[in-house]
Amino acid sequence: MNEGRVLALSGGVGGAKLALGLSRVLPADDLLICANTGDDFEHLGLTICPDIDTLTYTLAGLANPELGWGRRDESWSFMETLATVGGETWFRLGDRDLALHVERTRRLAAGESLTAITDDVCRRWGIGHRIIPMSDDPVRTKVHAEEGWLDFQDYFVRQQCRPVVRELAFVGADQARPHPDLLAALADPTLRAVVICPSNPFISIEPTLALPGLRAALTACAAPVVAVSPIIGGKAVKGPTAKMMAELGTPPSARAVAERYADLIDAYVLDEQDAADADTIDADVTLARTLMTTLEDRENLARIALQAADKVRA
Amino acid sequence: MNEGRVLALSGGVGGAKLALGLSRVLPADDLLICANTGDDFEHLGLTICPDIDTLTYTLAGLANPELGWGRRDESWSFMETLATVGGETWFRLGDRDLALHVERTRRLAAGESLTAITDDVCRRWGIGHRIIPMSDDPVRTKVHAEEGWLDFQDYFVRQQCRPVVRELAFVGADQARPHPDLLAALADPTLRAVVICPSNPFISIEPTLALPGLRAALTACAAPVVAVSPIIGGKAVKGPTAKMMAELGTPPSARAVAERYADLIDAYVLDEQDAADADTIDADVTLARTLMTTLEDRENLARIALQAADKVRA
Repeated sequence: MNEGRVLALSGGVGGAKLALGLSRVLPADDLLICANTGDDFEHLGLTICPDIDTLTYTLAGLANPELGWGRRDESWSFMETLATVGGETWFRLGDRDLALHVERTRRLAAGESLTAITDDVCRRWGIGHRIIPMSDDPVRTKVHAEEGWLDFQDYFVRQQCRPVVRELAFVGADQARPHPDLLAALADPTLRAVVICPSNPFISIEPTLALPGLRAALTACAAPVVAVSPIIGGKAVKGPTAKMMAELGTPPSARAVAERYADLIDAYVLDEQDAADADTIDADVTLARTLMTTLEDRENLARIALQAADKVRA
Repeated sequence: MNEGRVLALSGGVGGAKLALGLSRVLPADDLLICANTGDDFEHLGLTICPDIDTLTYTLAGLANPELGWGRRDESWSFMETLATVGGETWFRLGDRDLALHVERTRRLAAGESLTAITDDVCRRWGIGHRIIPMSDDPVRTKVHAEEGWLDFQDYFVRQQCRPVVRELAFVGADQARPHPDLLAALADPTLRAVVICPSNPFISIEPTLALPGLRAALTACAAPVVAVSPIIGGKAVKGPTAKMMAELGTPPSARAVAERYADLIDAYVLDEQDAADADTIDADVTLARTLMTTLEDRENLARIALQAADKVRA
């Protein structure tokens, strides 16, 4: 029952919490974490991959517990000085965080793939579990707001999600090759489960789903697909998920998230606070405490998500 | 007598000390500091201009008094973290220093000139005196050693000047356009003096002299040209000047430096310790205490260099 590999599709913060939980309850060989790269962007001449970085920092024990993003033991001399020479400071880059961006940008320019660089960083930082980008080809999320199309980080960080979202686009997704190990995992008849982590469906999961053949591969996948709701009590734990859902005409609820994944998921884990939504969801439903505050919470929710998948498979 | 503008040709540390002295005894409009860019290089994807930076930090009061290079109040989180991802750490970049390199590289890539960027940084940091690059076109010093041609910073920093120098080349110098304000200053009949700062002649001054027309413009210049010896008591105050001179077949002496400038200089300031060299130098000689330890030393030597020039002109 609890054999075979698990594929986790993840965005940043919320997704990374569950990915960490999964990494604590599954051996390294039994978990493949696939990171959204739609948030990636070029800034100050550097290629920045926020979701890969959040996953990497989280699994390496280097995540910043106060900020919820970036590195622990961070210093800010670079940013302070950048301001004195008139540089752009709306995207906060810590001195330690910067090292990863500078070195990755250098290696990408030298022709290495994002996969190879991510593998190497994980190895150096003692991360046994594998984190892969959804694609080595660039995909860039754009936000259609009243003022026109915005780069994702412009919307998300610079404008702090204030613009009203009308539409999202994943530029490059139609041409990007899904990561071969992502496709291989989905095609593997021994795959145990696909876990869609509690990330924002619109911006953290759907860029991956927009890759050519990805939805078909998920539908054809022999393993059960389980999603964990990022909505608790009708609200997002963090970030703009609820606001974005409302603006896109979807009520911010656990049920609405399940509906976005309707043709893909076999099982759904939602919070006990959203029990009222359970009956109307077209998937095998598990109610749980989904707020992940402690490391134990992360491990427990990981076990619950795996059990939800295993139950469907049985 | 003490009217008109002064042009200073400078490299990094030693030159910057005298440039600071000159900036303390001359109004902003009466001094133009022309920086060597032969030391510039591309590293970690960044364009780094060590001599411009040393001059800028020195005149802004931001230079690191302990290290003798880089920024004061520096922190090293970037470098520490870069090591953990396998990045190259032989060229030490502090977190604050890095901000200048990242922002300059971004602006160069956006099409701004090194001159425009340097002007803007100086303005932002409250430097009234003007610092210009010798050229906006790239010139890169290469060192011919036993193992072949080395990039300058590879020789200078990574290999700490250990290789024996056979020859130097200033790649790009023959195609580079001298800074127009450098040529304009030299052609200005009211120019008061050209001061060749006490920098390493081979690597800090000769790249500028290698620019097309520069030697001719210096020779034709109406103002006296005064050089200040970087050698004190037969030794370099700092850096590889003496070692390099010996390897290139020139005895490391104040006189040998004067000989390298023989067809260019009208006056020469050398240290009292090198008084024995004075008689054999084909220029108007001034003996002085040239070691610049205090700010007062820098100002005094600046006054002495200007007086030496004014004396020739009289």
